[in-house]
Amino acid sequence: MSAPSAVTAKERAAASGQLLAAVDIGGTKIAAGLVDRTGELLCQVSRPTPAQESGGAVLTAVHAAVEQLAADPRWGRVAALGIGSAGPVDTARGTVSPVNIPGWRDFPLVRSMAAHPALAGLPMVLGGDAVAMAAAEHWRGAARGHANALCIVVSTGVGAGLILDGAVYPGPTGNAGHLGHICVDLDGDPCACGSRGCVEGLASGTAIARRALRDGWQPHGSDTSAGAVAASARRGDPIALAAFDRGAQALAAGIAATATLVEIDLAVIGGGVAQAGDLLFAPLRRHLARYATLSFTSAIRVVPAALGTDAGLVGAAALAAPRLGATAAPPS
Amino acid sequence: MSAPSAVTAKERAAASGQLLAAVDIGGTKIAAGLVDRTGELLCQVSRPTPAQESGGAVLTAVHAAVEQLAADPRWGRVAALGIGSAGPVDTARGTVSPVNIPGWRDFPLVRSMAAHPALAGLPMVLGGDAVAMAAAEHWRGAARGHANALCIVVSTGVGAGLILDGAVYPGPTGNAGHLGHICVDLDGDPCACGSRGCVEGLASGTAIARRALRDGWQPHGSDTSAGAVAASARRGDPIALAAFDRGAQALAAGIAATATLVEIDLAVIGGGVAQAGDLLFAPLRRHLARYATLSFTSAIRVVPAALGTDAGLVGAAALAAPRLGATAAPPS
Repeated sequence: MSAPSAVTAKERAAASGQLLAAVDIGGTKIAAGLVDRTGELLCQVSRPTPAQESGGAVLTAVHAAVEQLAADPRWGRVAALGIGSAGPVDTARGTVSPVNIPGWRDFPLVRSMAAHPALAGLPMVLGGDAVAMAAAEHWRGAARGHANALCIVVSTGVGAGLILDGAVYPGPTGNAGHLGHICVDLDGDPCACGSRGCVEGLASGTAIARRALRDGWQPHGSDTSAGAVAASARRGDPIALAAFDRGAQALAAGIAATATLVEIDLAVIGGGVAQAGDLLFAPLRRHLARYATLSFTSAIRVVPAALGTDAGLVGAAALAAPRLGATAAPPS
Repeated sequence: MSAPSAVTAKERAAASGQLLAAVDIGGTKIAAGLVDRTGELLCQVSRPTPAQESGGAVLTAVHAAVEQLAADPRWGRVAALGIGSAGPVDTARGTVSPVNIPGWRDFPLVRSMAAHPALAGLPMVLGGDAVAMAAAEHWRGAARGHANALCIVVSTGVGAGLILDGAVYPGPTGNAGHLGHICVDLDGDPCACGSRGCVEGLASGTAIARRALRDGWQPHGSDTSAGAVAASARRGDPIALAAFDRGAQALAAGIAATATLVEIDLAVIGGGVAQAGDLLFAPLRRHLARYATLSFTSAIRVVPAALGTDAGLVGAAALAAPRLGATAAPPS
């Protein structure tokens, strides 16, 4: 073959390039999408999670989202599927037990997905939603180019995932980076997980709002969320400011512990509470300078997440991206 | 070549097998030794560390230990050198800044070793002493066969190293696993590192003895070490028992945090304070059951270290063992 025709073949392969399918399963919403090799989300569908119904009903909803996606004319180019699920997950066994989906306990999600005709034979990778988010920020977002980072979602809870040595580090069962449940206050308040003094119990939006109310914060109207605490803090309310400061302190202690254990140099923070901006980031950086004092931790930086609500699907696709090479190229 | 002569060549190669040289540099002692491919320590030499003298004097002592070792007739089979050093280290730059050796600050240890005629051209790997100890326990000790473990030395300080995904995980600068300086008490006492509430400040032998004295412990005689606290605890002294319990609690919180962040299923504990046996291990296991509550952490086990004082040299050799394959076999 001559060189020009080789280029043409390459161009043709690029035009008909392999795609990744992604599924993101949360307690509120099930989303599915197509993502290209560069991490761009090409299209997505979603539907509400029937979280309080049977496990079978939830699976039916997931399958329906996949069927809707499979009607896309580009579906034939899909070479692998990534699934991000609310946790806990057990990637070694292919099961999930999402806290907010009671019908799924040790639910065999990978096996149940593989049984769907549209997905038969497709390489499939399962991950926790926080690990997927970390993979997305590493692929396309604020952790791009960083070999060692912690990507955190501060929302009603606190979730996180690790990038180590240039790649997402899910750990043997897909739960590594579980920052929300490390203890930073060994005599602290009991946590729903059974431990005490967990980062989540001090730094989540729920915890920030609870602390503000406990300390006498007077909300305007009936909104007692962390967002309403943030609004009061912006107006200078000292109780609201102190609630954010305490959350930032706990988050800083947890980030510093992570840096001390595995040498990360970047912490990426997303989620609803991170929308508070400097109300969170300013005290977080101040406290972090107090806790991250060793030569190999003190240069750590804290930045906001770069991806928004697409991170779940882009991240699920990122988990499956390494499987692309293992698949035969689709016919051109 | 016929099969029998191939076997003979193999036997000859085994008999003249490659060896690893190991150097272990601490604030008290400098040791050097030869280790075979199975991790057996064949011989060792040692001398006191002139820790309060100039950096040059310390290097001269290290070189002298190496020269003494190089006089061994087996030296010609040495194919790589592993160096374990008191930390902090910076393996990316090949430098060390041991807290107890003030003459070495950002000291270019790898370059200084490579300049010695006996070591010229030898592949060389530097690691922190706690990382080396973890490598030794993984190779020949209590963590053998475990893919994910934390190996801890509880002594005057608290040091540790990580095994992740089947191999020692030193991190980008060789300091990963720094358990002694993660915060488990975010409002706790200041630590010499600049942070507060560090595991070391609660669980080291120094901390256990300090707490006992503070709480009114009456030592027999002038020995106020953690060993003397252990002796009182064995006689049922409630203050001494409480001091060990508090140390164990902090250690448990730190081990649980590590398991939560990177999914380890084994913690190996060595060092002088671990000699207290059940005085440490019984409350440690009890507290760990309270802090390690998640599905992927609750099965974690705690065991004593299996290697004694040889762990430093065996571990330094373990760090260099992966370099054996990269070297041409010495002539037989």
